[in-house]
Amino acid sequence: MIGLIRVLTTANLEVLNEHGRIISELYAVPVNNECIPDQPFGIHNDETEQLANPKIVALGQRMEQDGCSVIVVSCAADPAVDLLRKHVSVPVIGAGSAASYMARMIGKPVGVMGITETLPKVMHDILGDLFVRYIQPEGVANTTDLMTPAGRQQAIQAAKTLMEQGIEVIVFACTGFSTIGLADVLRTELNIPVIDAVEAEGLIASNLYKQLKR
Amino acid sequence: MIGLIRVLTTANLEVLNEHGRIISELYAVPVNNECIPDQPFGIHNDETEQLANPKIVALGQRMEQDGCSVIVVSCAADPAVDLLRKHVSVPVIGAGSAASYMARMIGKPVGVMGITETLPKVMHDILGDLFVRYIQPEGVANTTDLMTPAGRQQAIQAAKTLMEQGIEVIVFACTGFSTIGLADVLRTELNIPVIDAVEAEGLIASNLYKQLKR
Repeated sequence: MIGLIRVLTTANLEVLNEHGRIISELYAVPVNNECIPDQPFGIHNDETEQLANPKIVALGQRMEQDGCSVIVVSCAADPAVDLLRKHVSVPVIGAGSAASYMARMIGKPVGVMGITETLPKVMHDILGDLFVRYIQPEGVANTTDLMTPAGRQQAIQAAKTLMEQGIEVIVFACTGFSTIGLADVLRTELNIPVIDAVEAEGLIASNLYKQLKR
Repeated sequence: MIGLIRVLTTANLEVLNEHGRIISELYAVPVNNECIPDQPFGIHNDETEQLANPKIVALGQRMEQDGCSVIVVSCAADPAVDLLRKHVSVPVIGAGSAASYMARMIGKPVGVMGITETLPKVMHDILGDLFVRYIQPEGVANTTDLMTPAGRQQAIQAAKTLMEQGIEVIVFACTGFSTIGLADVLRTELNIPVIDAVEAEGLIASNLYKQLKR
């Protein structure tokens, strides 16, 4: 079993399971989805990140005890990923680092799309010299906005703006883009490789899961 | 179609197709295997690398013209990978960089196994602070040696030596290890994640191939 940690608190099972559902469907692996307690608005600044860190470690430790052979911290900012690695012996994968290293495997100039104001530091550090620009689709404050026809057009326009600046790979810095299927929209419309953070974390986690149970 | 470049010349179809066969079997994608001309001993020093570089570029360009949507340079030293990226518009994946970035996704100390005297520079550079040690199985000069029971024991012993030094992930710096199935031997015997260079290049190449034809 892959243990997947959501860094926002939700009692809505559909929301809780949405990343794991994508990974199970794409890679045919079982995923146990759990969330940290008492943070319904997730991680949105330094204070809430500090608050979340020990909860992520505690949840990851419990998942290892419960038999998970790979743990995924399903957030583009990789919160507590390095910390959790010091507390468990199973592999720990972060959405932001997995997506960024996957972009480096391709080696072409990268444009990043997200909905927060800034690109997560872990992604910026890994992308390094391949990083060209970070962009937020205009007028889009959350992934619900992106689900409207206008939001979808804004996302395509943002990707086009990146491509005009010479990028050849798009990386998502927002796991919310995965749940609305934005990657396939951009792939179809623009014929460009898109690295979706949930797909990327799932690609490596499922590969490790399969090889460790051989 | 994925275009896979072998950097040694062979008329033996079984040898020519062995990396592509592994990738097709693991990831259910079509692979066209071709090799560079007039280098039956492959790349084994600076001179033969310089000789191979323009041949790799020419072959990659032809593969793109023939409709390959992803090109793989199937050698742990990533020969001409950066150069080829400047000459084609499709993604170019190198075995050494793909395996090394995959190790970085896991973020734990890495031991590398190979049969050449030194670790390829591209792998050393990417692994950076995660790199602990490079090891050659004792008395093993080529992958044929590894296929004997004694060679297999030497490979397991080399992996154990790495693990005693605190490594938690093994990366192969030799595509020949893939054709003899060494990764599964070490996974089974030692219960440790093993990043096989052909499996790693295939993981990213097949993901890109599938998303670009969606």
